[in-house]
Amino acid sequence: MTKKDNRPEEMKLPDRDEHLIDWLNKVLLRTDILDYRYNLKGCGVWKGYGFKLRRNIMKIIRDLLEDTEIPHEEYLFPLLIPEPQFMKEAKHVKGFEEEVYWITHGGTTPLDVKLALRPTSETVMYPMFSLWIRSHQDLPLKTYQIVNCFRWEGKNTRPMLRVREITTFKEAHTVHATAEGAEDQIIEALDIYKRFFNDLGLSYIINTRPKWDTFPGADYTIAFDVLFPGRNRALQIGTVHNLGTTFAKTFDIKYENLEGDMTYGYQTCYGISERVIASVIVQHGDDQGLILPPNIAPIQVVVIPILFKKADEVKIIETCRNIKGFLDKAGIRAKLDESQQSPGAKFYHWEQKGIPLRIEVGPRDLKKNQMVTVRRDNREKQFISLDNIKETGDRIKKILNDLNDDLRKSLASNTREAISRSNDMDEAIELVENDKGVVEIPFCGSEDCASELEKRCDGLKFLGIPVRYMDFYDESENEYGELNGKSLANDELFCIICSKRTDKYWTIGRSY
Amino acid sequence: MTKKDNRPEEMKLPDRDEHLIDWLNKVLLRTDILDYRYNLKGCGVWKGYGFKLRRNIMKIIRDLLEDTEIPHEEYLFPLLIPEPQFMKEAKHVKGFEEEVYWITHGGTTPLDVKLALRPTSETVMYPMFSLWIRSHQDLPLKTYQIVNCFRWEGKNTRPMLRVREITTFKEAHTVHATAEGAEDQIIEALDIYKRFFNDLGLSYIINTRPKWDTFPGADYTIAFDVLFPGRNRALQIGTVHNLGTTFAKTFDIKYENLEGDMTYGYQTCYGISERVIASVIVQHGDDQGLILPPNIAPIQVVVIPILFKKADEVKIIETCRNIKGFLDKAGIRAKLDESQQSPGAKFYHWEQKGIPLRIEVGPRDLKKNQMVTVRRDNREKQFISLDNIKETGDRIKKILNDLNDDLRKSLASNTREAISRSNDMDEAIELVENDKGVVEIPFCGSEDCASELEKRCDGLKFLGIPVRYMDFYDESENEYGELNGKSLANDELFCIICSKRTDKYWTIGRSY
Repeated sequence: MTKKDNRPEEMKLPDRDEHLIDWLNKVLLRTDILDYRYNLKGCGVWKGYGFKLRRNIMKIIRDLLEDTEIPHEEYLFPLLIPEPQFMKEAKHVKGFEEEVYWITHGGTTPLDVKLALRPTSETVMYPMFSLWIRSHQDLPLKTYQIVNCFRWEGKNTRPMLRVREITTFKEAHTVHATAEGAEDQIIEALDIYKRFFNDLGLSYIINTRPKWDTFPGADYTIAFDVLFPGRNRALQIGTVHNLGTTFAKTFDIKYENLEGDMTYGYQTCYGISERVIASVIVQHGDDQGLILPPNIAPIQVVVIPILFKKADEVKIIETCRNIKGFLDKAGIRAKLDESQQSPGAKFYHWEQKGIPLRIEVGPRDLKKNQMVTVRRDNREKQFISLDNIKETGDRIKKILNDLNDDLRKSLASNTREAISRSNDMDEAIELVENDKGVVEIPFCGSEDCASELEKRCDGLKFLGIPVRYMDFYDESENEYGELNGKSLANDELFCIICSKRTDKYWTIGRSY
Repeated sequence: MTKKDNRPEEMKLPDRDEHLIDWLNKVLLRTDILDYRYNLKGCGVWKGYGFKLRRNIMKIIRDLLEDTEIPHEEYLFPLLIPEPQFMKEAKHVKGFEEEVYWITHGGTTPLDVKLALRPTSETVMYPMFSLWIRSHQDLPLKTYQIVNCFRWEGKNTRPMLRVREITTFKEAHTVHATAEGAEDQIIEALDIYKRFFNDLGLSYIINTRPKWDTFPGADYTIAFDVLFPGRNRALQIGTVHNLGTTFAKTFDIKYENLEGDMTYGYQTCYGISERVIASVIVQHGDDQGLILPPNIAPIQVVVIPILFKKADEVKIIETCRNIKGFLDKAGIRAKLDESQQSPGAKFYHWEQKGIPLRIEVGPRDLKKNQMVTVRRDNREKQFISLDNIKETGDRIKKILNDLNDDLRKSLASNTREAISRSNDMDEAIELVENDKGVVEIPFCGSEDCASELEKRCDGLKFLGIPVRYMDFYDESENEYGELNGKSLANDELFCIICSKRTDKYWTIGRSY
């Protein structure tokens, strides 16, 4: 459906699929989402339009977390961690020691104790949990916070994907009386994230990460990845960790159980970051710029008067103002563009900004008492009568809803096409090397076999075991049809590396 | 109105007026607002209840900033500032150099360039403003952000009042084409803050700070102070700065004006922090704990069933659930306490948490189909019939509104009483030394005279010239009646230190 692009040179963008990072950087800058020209690599400025988008997206996750049967409560913990406290959990430190920023001076005074900037907040929160939790009545404790956190990333940063200041880190942390309580929480967390990503129209895969790629200190980690268009590489956008009692033992999180014994709490934590917002931008966007799902778009509809002849000007503008008025009343976030730009320039501008729906009124429409609507995603036009305002509002809402649904469906089908399955090592490697996406292979689960395969294919990574093979996974939610997994347990499967018998497929692919 | 306090020892609080800091610390901890037992002095944890209060308060300031004729837009700027960028504006550096935290290492790698944690964001934002502003069409630029910022405060920290991590720093920054544009912005900023503090029921004084106490780099600073009860000391809770072109020159913020010349922009900035929330807690609270204004209380009404006889239990609980149900529908934030605690214990608990209104239903009420309401501030009781749910809801709303108004009125009158005026140096000093509040004195404005007076009275500070003497101040808004100032310009006034003729009163007092 690619047409010749007549827009002026400075409006043109790199091909999204071929030059993804360049495309992302330019889109972020031009549409006033994030400006990375700050004097420190990997730190960006959220501008007004971007911040509104971020706010709408964060509202969805806040609501989901607070609407659970036992709600998560929002907290706010300190950024600074004294060195001994950060160093307490050895496994955890190992995972982060190369990434932590250290403060050594307050003013001109050297500090007695060095302070770390949080790379994540386990070591900040858990000493406090230890103070708060005394008896089983204090459990479950379900907290979350949305904060900035910091990881020293060397020079190799990427806009929103690999940054030094993660500006939008949503981390939830829970404590439970029993291992079963923590397991149930993992299921709730997966459910929250599925709904969240579904609301954003994202398409994703879910895998239990291999042992060697588990969060430092966790018993196991389940991760959500999106596949970015073009090269079909995986980007991790959310993780859910069962921490067992590792941190509880380190930070002495104990409660008195019903028998009067002091017992360690079972913990989970799960996080997302602005990578989710990047995914919305990348997965939905196209070579003209952003395409924002209506439910999160800061502006859902832009109204543009098409002025040719002086004679009609006043009436057309009046009609457009009326339309803007009834859209406001209908609770639709609308913008009327009365600037002096040409209609064409306005079209390009608002298209690049990803406004889901454009409304135009020109001289011909004025005569027919109608308006024209144009969808941002597929350019579909409709002519809608202005005779009955109530009906007109309802039709606009329906178009916006359809657009939301269509965005999601087309993405899900793209992702489905980028998942293949192979029982042959050479074929699997070829699929990955040719950017066909992720491949599911029968695999024994040993790190040695994994290393061997990784050596044979540059950038190949073991993403883990698809969760639809897990006992708790509800098959009715399986979006991948014939890739359904649980029945596989009965198949005759052999690891494609060592040929040992196995009952599981694993996902491999390249990732960001 | 003090009665004997029968509550258990662990519920008792220190006398608010006598032991303010101790009272504040205990109230914050016991009511789940902020927990300062974190392993680093001056850093606290916002807990669930406190975070909800913070959220309600921040919503008010966000709405005010975004509802102005030209709205302020919310942005989010980086936390880290490379040393050369921070050092660029010399006056500004001078003001902050002893307070800045320095990062020297990323992981185990020493950094080439040291990084400061923002103590405030001028040096973060203005290099970006310089990129964004090109022509007069880019002006005015009106931005704000709500972030954490950091000031090294030595060991002498105080909960919410003097902290190392300021968790709730709202800073607005604007750029204008002309000096007049910036002046108008100062008036808008004062108006926003007045409305904000009024909405919170705070009572405050506003003074133009002396030259020697102006924000580093600003032309002048106007500050809001509340007077804390008991010792009547001033706490600065908001500042508004006219920056002129100082920073524009340092950071090269220029635009092309209508004549085609490159011209420096005129800047303002204005900020508030969690000190505002501390003021709400301190000014409204009493020896029993918090008293939260209904418009910001996370829970506005608590419903408590009073159970004596088994027979009535089911019906009373049912009635309470119905009440909770219709409060929810009426949009009132309500909580039903069905826990196993005694009614007395529940009363103490919710009183300490500052819930503005308690509803009780006991066996006698059940018979009369009524409920009892008890106001948190003055313990006023009402018996309200449950015959007509609609009417009942309206009455509850009226009680909550009255409570909001009464809190504010009583505070304003306290503040008024704590402002006196004196033309005699010894009398003025005596008033300050006896904790009578702030005193307005005729003063010439010289720093030498100020130092002389400060030497004679421990902790005395020149808070500045009351804004009601300023030309732009709207006299109809003057809350202080006979203290009205503009007419003073005609009086015969002489500085009480050097006896030089002057036309202005200045405010002196002790401060936190």
